Amino acid sequence: MSIFFDDFTLGRVFHLGSVEVTADDIMRFGREFDPQPFHIDLASAEESMVGGLIASGWHICSLFMRLMVDGFMGHSASFGSPGVEVKWLAPARPGDVLHGTSTVIETRLSQSKPDRGIVTLRNQMHNQHGVLVMDMIGRSLHGCRPA
Amino acid sequence: MSIFFDDFTLGRVFHLGSVEVTADDIMRFGREFDPQPFHIDLASAEESMVGGLIASGWHICSLFMRLMVDGFMGHSASFGSPGVEVKWLAPARPGDVLHGTSTVIETRLSQSKPDRGIVTLRNQMHNQHGVLVMDMIGRSLHGCRPA
Repeated sequence: MSIFFDDFTLGRVFHLGSVEVTADDIMRFGREFDPQPFHIDLASAEESMVGGLIASGWHICSLFMRLMVDGFMGHSASFGSPGVEVKWLAPARPGDVLHGTSTVIETRLSQSKPDRGIVTLRNQMHNQHGVLVMDMIGRSLHGCRPA
Repeated sequence: MSIFFDDFTLGRVFHLGSVEVTADDIMRFGREFDPQPFHIDLASAEESMVGGLIASGWHICSLFMRLMVDGFMGHSASFGSPGVEVKWLAPARPGDVLHGTSTVIETRLSQSKPDRGIVTLRNQMHNQHGVLVMDMIGRSLHGCRPA
């Protein structure tokens, strides 16, 4: 545990690195969780309104989560998340490289349990062209640094 | 294509069937996308504040998506989703059986493109004890039935 509620200072940006989205990964995720034609089959995807294979929105969220766990959530005193709001703004296609950032936009000490606080993060994935692919507001509960 | 915007009548409930969450699935998803101890390792999970292995919130969303695609989204004239709001209200543990429902809570014909409309769904996963595990508000765009 090296990151505590106290470390989420307002405006702090966590740069989470990047992940490449491959056609194989898109189709593997799609076959298991979101078997719509444009997620699982190259030919059908080409003929669809999206003009080619695109990643499931849930796949993009999951890839972001991995970046966030590797980046800071995995060594934070996290008590989990009550929920998120997600917007999918642009497709992620095979070969795209998605860069993740988390920006602290609000922090609030718990009133009932003063050893923890709620952090609101703006979580974003941009592709290699700087296009915003996913925009998420997420809340999570983090323990305070022990006195 | 058998389900169109016109079929999403206010209050209609889609019963999407159920899916069992297994320990193997929880850990496989966790290792790839959310490698926090309580998603990937039985012993660490037992010692954690959640008292045992629980599914990643993104895994629950993805399992719901699969139920929705199999239930109606896979044969709807869908143009995708601009976004969702998700609340994770209770953990999903190995052996839990999650039941999915989608309820139509709002419909609105597109003003700019009258061949389609926006449907707002309340998507829920309840476990075998009737406990609400996930509560999601999702919007999606659907083509109208051809005249």
